[in-house]
Amino acid sequence: MHMKKFINDPRQLVPELLEGFTLAFPRHVELSGSNTIVRATPKPAGKVRLVTLGGSGHEPGLSGFVGRGMLDYSVAGEIFAAPGAAKCIDALREACAGAESALLIVLNHSGDVLAANIAMQAVEREGLNVRIVLTEEDISSPVGDRRGLVGCVGVYKVAGAAAEKGASLEQCVELAQRMADNMRTLAVAVRTATHPVTGQPIFELGDGEMEIGMGQHGEAGTGRMQLKSANQTAEIMIEQLLADLKVNAGEELLVMLNGAGATTLMELYLVFRRVAQVLEGRRIKLARSAIGEFITTQEQAGFQIMIARMDSQLIELWDAPADTPFFRML
Amino acid sequence: MHMKKFINDPRQLVPELLEGFTLAFPRHVELSGSNTIVRATPKPAGKVRLVTLGGSGHEPGLSGFVGRGMLDYSVAGEIFAAPGAAKCIDALREACAGAESALLIVLNHSGDVLAANIAMQAVEREGLNVRIVLTEEDISSPVGDRRGLVGCVGVYKVAGAAAEKGASLEQCVELAQRMADNMRTLAVAVRTATHPVTGQPIFELGDGEMEIGMGQHGEAGTGRMQLKSANQTAEIMIEQLLADLKVNAGEELLVMLNGAGATTLMELYLVFRRVAQVLEGRRIKLARSAIGEFITTQEQAGFQIMIARMDSQLIELWDAPADTPFFRML
Repeated sequence: MHMKKFINDPRQLVPELLEGFTLAFPRHVELSGSNTIVRATPKPAGKVRLVTLGGSGHEPGLSGFVGRGMLDYSVAGEIFAAPGAAKCIDALREACAGAESALLIVLNHSGDVLAANIAMQAVEREGLNVRIVLTEEDISSPVGDRRGLVGCVGVYKVAGAAAEKGASLEQCVELAQRMADNMRTLAVAVRTATHPVTGQPIFELGDGEMEIGMGQHGEAGTGRMQLKSANQTAEIMIEQLLADLKVNAGEELLVMLNGAGATTLMELYLVFRRVAQVLEGRRIKLARSAIGEFITTQEQAGFQIMIARMDSQLIELWDAPADTPFFRML
Repeated sequence: MHMKKFINDPRQLVPELLEGFTLAFPRHVELSGSNTIVRATPKPAGKVRLVTLGGSGHEPGLSGFVGRGMLDYSVAGEIFAAPGAAKCIDALREACAGAESALLIVLNHSGDVLAANIAMQAVEREGLNVRIVLTEEDISSPVGDRRGLVGCVGVYKVAGAAAEKGASLEQCVELAQRMADNMRTLAVAVRTATHPVTGQPIFELGDGEMEIGMGQHGEAGTGRMQLKSANQTAEIMIEQLLADLKVNAGEELLVMLNGAGATTLMELYLVFRRVAQVLEGRRIKLARSAIGEFITTQEQAGFQIMIARMDSQLIELWDAPADTPFFRML
């Protein structure tokens, strides 16, 4: 596949894309230092700051969720690469300036976790009041080795709403961890993307094949199979998710469908329809839903299904107002 | 290109996708009859209803903009095809039930215009109070033969906000027409999509080529050229747009960037960055902006740039609250 992307100098890709992003959403975000996105209007004093970090190339994730009711800081790495620990330390220091506290939310990928751990050790030595919550909800790997996928958006939403309402750091940690513990995600891929810097395909997949369980960067999944219909694919995935989360009749779920990049909303609607039918058949309540492109992998085709067991408090936080470039709730 | 899409029976594609859409956004929308999307909570009595129509396969457009502050009715056709006039008549009758009035907003494509004109004649004979505004802002064709592209979203937004505030039908028509008259759009395509029913590519484009001026369904543009950088492409397009709209220094613009489907937000940020730089260099004010996928063509790669000359009233209406599945303003 010949790469056909509108870029300039690949070495300037991340600074340029972040500059364009902040120019497009001046009411919501601005740059702080190099490659860290912060709110244009900082959160009032005395409220917990939410910080996240992760590679670029997954737009609108993660910086697209900086704004009222969600994140305060997003530390962006190079394409598909964790940011350096030094930048994370800077962001945590800035978040904690004036004796504030901060919650660092990290998707479980080795580079991100390494940077986060180094940063946590450094700021704890400085006496800053920072806690960390890891998201690791990808059921294609065994427990203990699970990646963080689109579920982080749910954690940003509920913990961000709590922080906005003035919850303590301990309360924010408890809510973020509750959401993280009660969510599961599974991905499927049908066509690769090209890496915008190298121009190389991210993975190989045969004509007519799909792979369930593939990670955000083309990490191997649980098995390749012939491409299936929207209904069949939805059934295979939702059954695995419900079994892993051990969802019972009568329970309430949030369902998020996250397009990988080139998969159409049309297809996601079809998949969602079948997921809703399966839940109805099992008398599981579809409490809330979200469909769109939240964390992409360039122009990869495929999607992620995320389910989360919701209680009344999590639903209330999910429904609270949010005003960010790519997630808004009225 | 082998089609790799998650679909079921292609003959059921539109009803199934609309069913999935309404299941995913129950707070915002529901189905009325076959293939017409309406608000889940109808607009209060006495306010002008906004109606639109157009083919499917362009999700989230057009039905994704039904909700408070924007559309009341979206009549969906088959994939890339106008809905029948009978469905449009039904929607206009429903919109005007109880002596209400309606504004029909139509993108200039021959099938859509034909259906709209037949429907308008029918409901005018019935004495319904309906007016029509056409969007025709694609500068790749000469005036009089211009297609409607993503600019319709701007018209939905300003006319929808006015209707929500209680403006009369005449005022809504004037504002919609003012927005339509003051906007221009230009598209570029770099890679085709496959038609989800036939599985065939929508158009052919050579390796390494791009085409400026291509229509929403692969209609021929003004010229093919070698793929250019984000900066070069942005410059070529924004210069043509500014010249066509005759924008002067000191004027205020809304800029919308609409991804065609597979072009990443990363790329759109780069393009936006250069557009903003060009405007700044000419002392044209970037008053408001929006970036995302509003009206797509399946997994086509490319994008549209829309500019609109804004006055203080249009900006106020753009900023007014909106709560729809795919356009929200707090």
